Amino acid sequence: MTGLPSHPRFVSLEGGEGAGKTTVLAALRDALLGCGDEVVCTREPGGTPLAERIRTLLLEPGHEPPAAETELLLMFAARAQHVRETIRPALARGAWVLSDRFTDSSYAYQGGGRGLDPAFIAVLERDAVGLQPGLTLLLDIDVQGGRARTRGRDPYPDRIERERDEFFERVRAAYRARAAAEPARFRLLDAAQPVAAVAGEAVRHLRQWRDRAEEARA
Amino acid sequence: MTGLPSHPRFVSLEGGEGAGKTTVLAALRDALLGCGDEVVCTREPGGTPLAERIRTLLLEPGHEPPAAETELLLMFAARAQHVRETIRPALARGAWVLSDRFTDSSYAYQGGGRGLDPAFIAVLERDAVGLQPGLTLLLDIDVQGGRARTRGRDPYPDRIERERDEFFERVRAAYRARAAAEPARFRLLDAAQPVAAVAGEAVRHLRQWRDRAEEARA
Repeated sequence: MTGLPSHPRFVSLEGGEGAGKTTVLAALRDALLGCGDEVVCTREPGGTPLAERIRTLLLEPGHEPPAAETELLLMFAARAQHVRETIRPALARGAWVLSDRFTDSSYAYQGGGRGLDPAFIAVLERDAVGLQPGLTLLLDIDVQGGRARTRGRDPYPDRIERERDEFFERVRAAYRARAAAEPARFRLLDAAQPVAAVAGEAVRHLRQWRDRAEEARA
Repeated sequence: MTGLPSHPRFVSLEGGEGAGKTTVLAALRDALLGCGDEVVCTREPGGTPLAERIRTLLLEPGHEPPAAETELLLMFAARAQHVRETIRPALARGAWVLSDRFTDSSYAYQGGGRGLDPAFIAVLERDAVGLQPGLTLLLDIDVQGGRARTRGRDPYPDRIERERDEFFERVRAAYRARAAAEPARFRLLDAAQPVAAVAGEAVRHLRQWRDRAEEARA
């Protein structure tokens, strides 16, 4: 959604399975720490004690699977908490916030993947979250390539990871459409490259972004 | 919200603490069973295994308290699941559904009590629930009278029960405003009467409602 407030030190990392988010996030954190900045690394769904308990409901079995609408509302319940308890306080004291996933994931997975109405997601984003990252790095990789990377890595895939390829094709298409619609916020990275190259490119984008933000403050 | 689909065999019971919902619900159930009808008694937040786990997150401590928006979205996540897994299947096979609380509780507690925008609640109701009770019995009692009834009954009040009187005054006002706005759906009962009298009045309303529904089908 355009027109939503954003914060320059709030950076999200998005992408499908096997795109290399974990490695890239660590490289971004180290780059900022090297500048002497405070960095809060967080993730979604999760990021507070309550939001992590919601994550468990979302991803682990032990009860009937959530309906698509239930999944969406649990994601946004966790996000509403995450923004208020973790992200805003960190930004307010001048820290960077690096989040492994944020609202774009809901547009991609619950919108693109599950077919829920993006207009409904936009209302949730506006009324329950009210904040966008200043910069979003999208690690884009074809579904087969991502699958090949994760194969053998995780013997216990969670409920969403067990979805079929068509689901992840729709997720990827939704992600790419969002990046195309918001070029000022998004950087699209080719995550089929070796992970070290993806991380290097991500760090370059972040440094440019940080330099521009510093200039704007000066 | 008007214009939302409703079902004649879906009946909700609303009201504050100490209004006598438990006793009234049992009387309504017995009246329908006496007619030979199938009756599903359920409650909110809850009504499915997943929704009951969401209820635990909402009402029990063990993590930071939810923000108002988080509370609202958890309530609707549970409700979206409840409608799909329990309420619609029961109605589809011809059963009555008696629910201890439904969407009106969110307008009263998260809208009136916590001050969240009723227009946002209406979007959640339309896009994530999509169903209203045909009949809603509101057990109305002044806050002091309700408190006097529950005093000593529950040594461990939950997170919402521990709110202050001003909160419950706003809840009551929101409930009464909803009843006034939708007279065809609501029956307002004076719950300051002895509970047996309230239950008798509730059963009379339900019998009239059932007779009219039977006539409409004939």
